[in-house]
Amino acid sequence: MKLSDIQSPQMLRACTIQEMEELAREIRSAIICTVAQNGGHLASNLGVVELTLALHRVLDCPKDKIVFDVGHQCYAHKMLTGRYGRFATLRQTDGLSGFPRREESAYDAFGAGHASTAISAALGLARARDMQKEDYRVVAVVGDGALTGGMCYEALNDAGSRGTQLTVILNDNEMSISRNVGALSRQLTKMRVSRGWLGMKKVVADTLRKVPLAGSGLHHAFQRIKNGVRNSLVKDKFFTSLGFHYFGPVDGHDLEGLERVLTRLRDMKEPVLVHVVTKKGSGFSQAEEKPEKYHGVSPFQMEDGQVRGKSGPSMGALAGKYAAKLAETDARICAVTAAMTDSTGFAPFAKRSPDRLFDVGIAEEHAVTLAAGMAAGGMRPFVAIYETFLQRSYDQIIEDVCLQRLPVCFLMDRAGLGAEDGPTHHGVFGLSMLRTIPNLTVLSPRDEKELKAMMDWYLQQEGPVAIRYPRSAEENLPPCQGFAPGKWEILKSGKDAALLAVSNMNGECMKAAKLLAEKGVQAMVVNASSVAPLDEALLQELAEKNIPIFTVEEHSLSGGFGSAVAEYCAAHQLPAPKKMLGIKEGFVPHGSRRVLLSRLGLNAEGIARGVEEA
Amino acid sequence: MKLSDIQSPQMLRACTIQEMEELAREIRSAIICTVAQNGGHLASNLGVVELTLALHRVLDCPKDKIVFDVGHQCYAHKMLTGRYGRFATLRQTDGLSGFPRREESAYDAFGAGHASTAISAALGLARARDMQKEDYRVVAVVGDGALTGGMCYEALNDAGSRGTQLTVILNDNEMSISRNVGALSRQLTKMRVSRGWLGMKKVVADTLRKVPLAGSGLHHAFQRIKNGVRNSLVKDKFFTSLGFHYFGPVDGHDLEGLERVLTRLRDMKEPVLVHVVTKKGSGFSQAEEKPEKYHGVSPFQMEDGQVRGKSGPSMGALAGKYAAKLAETDARICAVTAAMTDSTGFAPFAKRSPDRLFDVGIAEEHAVTLAAGMAAGGMRPFVAIYETFLQRSYDQIIEDVCLQRLPVCFLMDRAGLGAEDGPTHHGVFGLSMLRTIPNLTVLSPRDEKELKAMMDWYLQQEGPVAIRYPRSAEENLPPCQGFAPGKWEILKSGKDAALLAVSNMNGECMKAAKLLAEKGVQAMVVNASSVAPLDEALLQELAEKNIPIFTVEEHSLSGGFGSAVAEYCAAHQLPAPKKMLGIKEGFVPHGSRRVLLSRLGLNAEGIARGVEEA
Repeated sequence: MKLSDIQSPQMLRACTIQEMEELAREIRSAIICTVAQNGGHLASNLGVVELTLALHRVLDCPKDKIVFDVGHQCYAHKMLTGRYGRFATLRQTDGLSGFPRREESAYDAFGAGHASTAISAALGLARARDMQKEDYRVVAVVGDGALTGGMCYEALNDAGSRGTQLTVILNDNEMSISRNVGALSRQLTKMRVSRGWLGMKKVVADTLRKVPLAGSGLHHAFQRIKNGVRNSLVKDKFFTSLGFHYFGPVDGHDLEGLERVLTRLRDMKEPVLVHVVTKKGSGFSQAEEKPEKYHGVSPFQMEDGQVRGKSGPSMGALAGKYAAKLAETDARICAVTAAMTDSTGFAPFAKRSPDRLFDVGIAEEHAVTLAAGMAAGGMRPFVAIYETFLQRSYDQIIEDVCLQRLPVCFLMDRAGLGAEDGPTHHGVFGLSMLRTIPNLTVLSPRDEKELKAMMDWYLQQEGPVAIRYPRSAEENLPPCQGFAPGKWEILKSGKDAALLAVSNMNGECMKAAKLLAEKGVQAMVVNASSVAPLDEALLQELAEKNIPIFTVEEHSLSGGFGSAVAEYCAAHQLPAPKKMLGIKEGFVPHGSRRVLLSRLGLNAEGIARGVEEA
Repeated sequence: MKLSDIQSPQMLRACTIQEMEELAREIRSAIICTVAQNGGHLASNLGVVELTLALHRVLDCPKDKIVFDVGHQCYAHKMLTGRYGRFATLRQTDGLSGFPRREESAYDAFGAGHASTAISAALGLARARDMQKEDYRVVAVVGDGALTGGMCYEALNDAGSRGTQLTVILNDNEMSISRNVGALSRQLTKMRVSRGWLGMKKVVADTLRKVPLAGSGLHHAFQRIKNGVRNSLVKDKFFTSLGFHYFGPVDGHDLEGLERVLTRLRDMKEPVLVHVVTKKGSGFSQAEEKPEKYHGVSPFQMEDGQVRGKSGPSMGALAGKYAAKLAETDARICAVTAAMTDSTGFAPFAKRSPDRLFDVGIAEEHAVTLAAGMAAGGMRPFVAIYETFLQRSYDQIIEDVCLQRLPVCFLMDRAGLGAEDGPTHHGVFGLSMLRTIPNLTVLSPRDEKELKAMMDWYLQQEGPVAIRYPRSAEENLPPCQGFAPGKWEILKSGKDAALLAVSNMNGECMKAAKLLAEKGVQAMVVNASSVAPLDEALLQELAEKNIPIFTVEEHSLSGGFGSAVAEYCAAHQLPAPKKMLGIKEGFVPHGSRRVLLSRLGLNAEGIARGVEEA
């Protein structure tokens, strides 16, 4: 049977082990080809091919539910659940999502995108099942990286307390996105390298062969397995403390072994954790060697793994490099990252000042309060977290940082549309989240010079500052001439309309101003890089001069920059903004940034049209 | 030495053990008297008197830092650090805060109010110390309840990974606010009741007597203690997995024993966790017997513990009771609480439908995604969490509930000022947090009838709903006549001004309208119970009739209800609100609600004045 023949996962049951192995090869090849073409999550998806095949052979989906954590490992699942034919559209506009999405398929039991949620969601499904006296299995697939997130622990603790029937697959590849951190990770490593692990497969296989397939004998048999296997091989302190039956480690690339283990465990009546060891990037040598580099990738050459095309200078890289430089002369400076030291551009900092960079794992809540503690202790921490993931720390930003007015600087990368990654990765709530918090200065630079000026300014303040920036700096604009909070920069003057642009909307607004000039409309373009506080003097001046205001942001309109301006104008009885351009309502799907901007009316043409209409 | 003589904790060193015991009695008495007078956190504060005395005798504060988790146990600390003289002003307007506050005293190393942050903050301080090559000790005091929060785990995991010097005191009283839940809690119970615990004190004492007081022998000695004590008594699986040296359990009411243990452990060079067993409410019989009841209390009679005065009907109690009733005929209904089943009014639900109520511990993040999973599985969960604590779940509300449009209902109690509890407990960011999230209906009822109508309405929807309500229903107003989303209720007509009031501002606005009528201004009062969506038809009508709009909310102005109205008016070119009344800027301190409302201009007089001025 070929991959293109698999219409539903039930068809896998008829496959021989050789056919399954052939399918694994086909799936790997499809993943590599498609990601090379469209970009996507490569290493993590290559790591779970056999695990996904085994799960779909053992389970009966969509009646049974698989909940993937983060979703960086759902490609094989998508191909095996009726979506192979559309797989080439992965991450493309109107194509398949790169993450599990409930609206895409009944086989996607729960959506994902942010880490550490799968056990909670799976436990919710399992309890819904029990309350409704239904009968199906629920499996959460969680990476060891996601396990550094506190939510996993909250969910394990809760599941264990009531003994809810649930299987957690711990997909242990020693990585989150960067190499995994934390004491528990060290513990997992110990389990993997323990003396018995190499000879383990045989012991497990032998023990399992003696186990009856169903019925009341199962529990007793499981005890035997546990006692037999555990005593010699496994230190499972942590998970058993939390009320789980721990089982493993199991080789995640041994299809037969996996299937045997999963078959035996699937009908346990209590919470079970299966520790499966996989290799990130398995089957693609470049990715096996450098899994960080091939975690989330842009389109690349299949022959040599070289990334194709070239994007503009990355704001994250500029921020990280500059922070590293500043740290060399300012001993107060330190940095906190959350499992993404590389992606946020902080690798140079980690290299130059390893004792002052703290990668806390996927633990954004802790990251922020840790930084608050550091600031209370006299340091100046930069906290580098993508805008969308900083949502996790909303409460800590309010209570631990801003209420205490502690000088923490949030460096929020990927502000604006996350493009191909879709709604879970768009940074389009950052302004509404932060501008409403007292004591917090919220800034959004458009280029390297402005970014650096903002970082310099933070170091002279005694309070918290958030600097949010898009993936790439604005190009083809004159460099910024410096920065002061509450003071905006006029990029282009004009008397008929004022376009107040946030961050990466400056370039589009400059182009829009050109289009408008062709129609006789002289538009001013203002780089509104200080969102809290606003440039109140300029707003007053525009009102006095009767120049109508248009706010432009790659952000949700509700509560965003335009909302801040409307609030200010209402409170001070100035004319309201003539129009607020941004994301009107609903969540924005994935797709090419250019197409999305066009559909949202946020490219130059859309902005010009918006101004003309008003 | 008497308590009034203690000007700084260093003075404790001169006390005999008898004097210390006398101080403990004095502190208990002061706690009981003051809380009986002012209200406050009683049981938790009574539980840590000896622990606090021992800590301050062994440490050298404020050079050494104690970080209290949540802060429900800082009263003895306040009295011993120069604040005994002002202790009678506890929780009163302009008096001492009921929580640690950095601006109140150099001895308050880090502020608190929301749970599970202390280990993160303490680790931040410890790392700041190490980076600056300073030399002081950092101790986090954390309840076993707070340990159900994932942040604690994130912080332990991080601390253990680098071996940062830090002492965590696990204050184990078997309670969070209600009786503690979760598998780990069960594990702690096992440790406490293990065969050796009763004879433990002697063993520890004997072993410790042999330990040298300082120097290189310490580490070795510690190993001896650990090996000696642990093997016979203690199962410390969980904490050692996370890289901590576990030590305990220790009797938290034995001053001498505590002091000896803390002295020996304070200079360990690695992360240490000391498991201290205390009794919540210790020294006040009513509180020992019913610690839930005496966790956070209103002023009460000291003789019999009876609460004084009488407050209006509690909205939480009404919501919980109604949910319990609905659950009897609608099998889809279930409930999720976060360590506050009683306080949120869900005790009747727990009693009537125990299999459908899930108290997950202090784990708001998990609570929300668990509910999302339940909704995905066909259930209709009510999630009952105080508004301020739901800030913890901002990301989960966006990603797991609203993006997937799952029908979860948030019941957010304590909307508006938290009064005596202060800034960490005010519910004044709920609207700005929620109204900007797509797909979410945000409602705010003013009385029981409206609350019930909203809960009924949710059950007919296919999407998420947030219902936020203040502690008490509005009294002295005619009962609400029903509810429809996007439709506001006109409480009183008037042609000169329209007061759009959210929730508990309706009563004040009705009184303000009377004051205004005396001055010849006929004000309309509108119960704006639907914040997202707004009543667009009514806003249009008011504009057509040229009636100026005043928005009134017990909420931050930035991003709140007034902001939503200003946004709508700007987008639809209607006249902006004439004035937006609410909390202008900064965090609101603690104090009497009446005084705070008056200072904020949000009582009837302030509202009337605001309208007149405009």
